Amino acid sequence: MTKILDGIRVIDFTTGHMGTFATMLLADYGAEVIKIEDPAVGGDSLRYTYPKNEDGSAYHAYLNRGKKSICIDRHTEKGQELLKKLINTADVVCDCFVSGELEMCHLGYDEMSIVNPRIIYASQTGFGKYGPMATNSGVDLTSEALAGLMQITGYPDTGPTAHGSRMADQFGGVHLAAGICCALIAREDSGQGQVVEVASADSMLTALEDTIAAASLKGKSFHREGNGSRAIAPYDVFEVKDGIIATAISTNSQWNNFLTAMNMEYLHDDPRFANNESRGVYYYTEEGNPNGLHELLTEAFLRMTKKECNDLFSPLNIPSGPGLTVAEAYEDEQLKARNMVLEIKDKAIGPIKMMGMPIKITGVDDMDFTSAPLLGENTAEYLKTVGVDVKTMQALVSENVIRFHGGDE
Amino acid sequence: MTKILDGIRVIDFTTGHMGTFATMLLADYGAEVIKIEDPAVGGDSLRYTYPKNEDGSAYHAYLNRGKKSICIDRHTEKGQELLKKLINTADVVCDCFVSGELEMCHLGYDEMSIVNPRIIYASQTGFGKYGPMATNSGVDLTSEALAGLMQITGYPDTGPTAHGSRMADQFGGVHLAAGICCALIAREDSGQGQVVEVASADSMLTALEDTIAAASLKGKSFHREGNGSRAIAPYDVFEVKDGIIATAISTNSQWNNFLTAMNMEYLHDDPRFANNESRGVYYYTEEGNPNGLHELLTEAFLRMTKKECNDLFSPLNIPSGPGLTVAEAYEDEQLKARNMVLEIKDKAIGPIKMMGMPIKITGVDDMDFTSAPLLGENTAEYLKTVGVDVKTMQALVSENVIRFHGGDE
Repeated sequence: MTKILDGIRVIDFTTGHMGTFATMLLADYGAEVIKIEDPAVGGDSLRYTYPKNEDGSAYHAYLNRGKKSICIDRHTEKGQELLKKLINTADVVCDCFVSGELEMCHLGYDEMSIVNPRIIYASQTGFGKYGPMATNSGVDLTSEALAGLMQITGYPDTGPTAHGSRMADQFGGVHLAAGICCALIAREDSGQGQVVEVASADSMLTALEDTIAAASLKGKSFHREGNGSRAIAPYDVFEVKDGIIATAISTNSQWNNFLTAMNMEYLHDDPRFANNESRGVYYYTEEGNPNGLHELLTEAFLRMTKKECNDLFSPLNIPSGPGLTVAEAYEDEQLKARNMVLEIKDKAIGPIKMMGMPIKITGVDDMDFTSAPLLGENTAEYLKTVGVDVKTMQALVSENVIRFHGGDE
Repeated sequence: MTKILDGIRVIDFTTGHMGTFATMLLADYGAEVIKIEDPAVGGDSLRYTYPKNEDGSAYHAYLNRGKKSICIDRHTEKGQELLKKLINTADVVCDCFVSGELEMCHLGYDEMSIVNPRIIYASQTGFGKYGPMATNSGVDLTSEALAGLMQITGYPDTGPTAHGSRMADQFGGVHLAAGICCALIAREDSGQGQVVEVASADSMLTALEDTIAAASLKGKSFHREGNGSRAIAPYDVFEVKDGIIATAISTNSQWNNFLTAMNMEYLHDDPRFANNESRGVYYYTEEGNPNGLHELLTEAFLRMTKKECNDLFSPLNIPSGPGLTVAEAYEDEQLKARNMVLEIKDKAIGPIKMMGMPIKITGVDDMDFTSAPLLGENTAEYLKTVGVDVKTMQALVSENVIRFHGGDE
C-alpha cells in the first residue's frame, strides 16, 4: 500500500504530547521518524508515563507507534557529531524545547542548515518562541487558559472548564504536522529548508471560531452558556432514557420534520418558534418566556431512547446522533467501520488498543501499523549507515555517549 | 514574501465551518482558493450567517479571507461544463457534501479524474462517507457527542459538556488541510491525484488522548472530573483575586520551587505530597484525606493575583499562565506579539477583527491578508481564462447559469 510520506526522514527530539502527536501523524503516513533519546535519563520520559504497567507505558506505545529509536547524548561533543551526521541524511528535525536548548548543543537551525541546507526545522512550544512569555514554561492547560476557551466552556454556574483531554496539544500537533507538510511542498521548488514553529496557545486561539469577529462587529461578549446555542436552535444536547443525544436543527424544513418525528406538531403554530432566530430568542424558560423551547424538548426527549431518535431522525436528514461514553465510543459501529480503533502488539507491553488515522486517503492502508521502538533499538543500525564502525560504537557505549537496546551488547 | 502554496489552485465547494476552515488555511499559505457559489440560493449560506450586519457576515469575512468567488449553478449542464473546464486547471477540489451530491452533478471523482488525472479530491463530512451512519447528517456537536469527549468534559455534578466553540469542525478542518498537503507531496512522485476524506467524528475520537490505551491496559473507565488531573498533580485551574490561573506541576523540583514561591514550605515534609503520584492520590479532600492538596491550594491562590503568580512562577520555570476571558485574550500581549489577532478590511462589511495564522514559517508574512470575495466577483475573470467569451457569458447570465457580482453587468 502507498506510504504517502515514504522517503521523508524525520530526526525527532520531541517528548510530551504535542510534538510527539505531530510526528506520529507523519509516521502514520509513511515518514521514517527516528526518535533521539537521551541515555542519561533512560530515554523519552513518555516511556515512564501513566497509563503504564511494569513492562512499559501505553501512552508511549500509542504516540510512538511506527517510529525508530536511537539513544545518543546530545550534550556531549561526540554525540553532537553523530547527530550532525544523521541530520545530514534527514529532511526534518522536530523538537519541543524552549528557545535555546538545541543552540546550546551546537545543533541550532543555523548550524544544522550549514550541514544540510534542505533541512526543515520544526518546533513546538506552549506560548511561542517570541513575545513577552517566550521564556515561560507552557503546557496544554496553560494554552487552553490563555486562549480564553475555558471561560466559554461549561455552564453559567460552574467555573471555567478545561477540555476533558489535551485539546491544545492535539490541535497544535496537527497544525505542526500540516506546517511541516507545507514546508516540504515549498522545498520542492526552492530546494531550501525553513523553520516552522507552532505554539499551542496560538492554535487554541484559532479555535475560538467567530468570537473575535462577533465581538468586533457586534460588541458581543462571551460567557459560559452550557451546550445550547442561541444562534442555531435547537443546537443542544438532551438526556434520553438510556444516555444523551445531540441535535442540531437550523432550517425550517428540518424543524417541521423534527416536530412530526417527535409527535410535537402542536408547536407548529407557536409563533415563538416560527424560525431559527426566534427559536433562539425563546429558547430558555425565563422571565417573560414560560415553557421555553429547551424545557419542552428536555421533557420530550426523556421519553425516548437513543435508538428511537436515530430511527426517526436519520431518514429525515435531521442532524443528530448519540452522545457516547468513552467506553461506548470504542465499541461504536460507525467508528469501528472507519477503522478508528485498532490494536497494536507493542514490543514492550503486548497488545494495546489505540486510536486510528482520521485522514483517509485512497491507497493508504489505515490498519498497517507497527510497534513503538524499544529504547535504543535502532542505534547500531543507523550509526552504521553514517559510517560508524563497531569498535567506535563500543567505545561510545562505554563513554555513555550512545546506548544500544538492552545495555552494551 | 514567500507564499508557500503558491501555484496550487483549489476549486472550493465548501460551506459551513469545517471545510471552509480547511481551505482558509490553504489560502493563508498562498493557495489560490476559488469558491464555487450557487447563484440560485444567493451563494454560500455563510454570507447570511451570524455574526452579521446589514452589509454582510463577519463569519463569512473570517473563513473566506483571501479567497475568490465564482458563481456557477452546478445543477445545470452548462454549469457542469464550465466547472469541468475549471477543474482541468486545478490541483484540488474540496467539498463538504454527503456522499453522492457531486456525482449527481456529473462531477464525481471518477469524472473529474478523467478531465484531470492530477486532481486531488478532498471532502469532509460529520460521520464519514462509509459505515452504518454514512447517510446521517452530522455537524460539529454530533461529532463531539459520538466520540465520547463530552462525557469526560465538565464536572461530576454537571451534565456532559460540549466545547465552547466548534472544536470538531476546527480539529477536523486542520486534519483535512494536512491530508491535502500529504496528497500534494505524494503527487510530486506519482503524478496522480487521490481522494482524501476526513470525518469530524473520526478526528474527535483521536482527541481522546490516551484514554483507549488506559482502558485497554488498566481497565480504567473515564468520567467527568473537572479540570484537575490525578496523573499530574497539581495540574489544575484555580481562582485568584482577579481571575483564574492554570498551573501544571509534575516534577519534584518544580514542586519544591512552587512551595517556596507560594510561601507554603510547611508542606515540604507532608508525606502525602512527597511525589507526583502521591500528590494525585491525596489531591481531593475526601473520606480519609482531610485537607487535600486541592483544598489547600484553592485557599492559597485566592490571596494572589494573576500578575503575582506570573512574577513568582515564570523565573522558576513553573508551567503556569493566566486563564483569560475571550475579551482579554484578544488584548493579550503574548498573543498580540505573535500576530494572532489581526484586522482585515472586508469588502462588504469594512474592518473586522479575526484570528491570525498559528503556523509560523520563515519568510511567510503572517499579516498579509486580503478580503473575502464579493459574491461572483471573479466569475468573468476566471471564465475568460478558460476561453468563454463575453457574449457567451452574457447568455449564461440570462439563463441563470452564472452570475457576476452586482447582477448581470
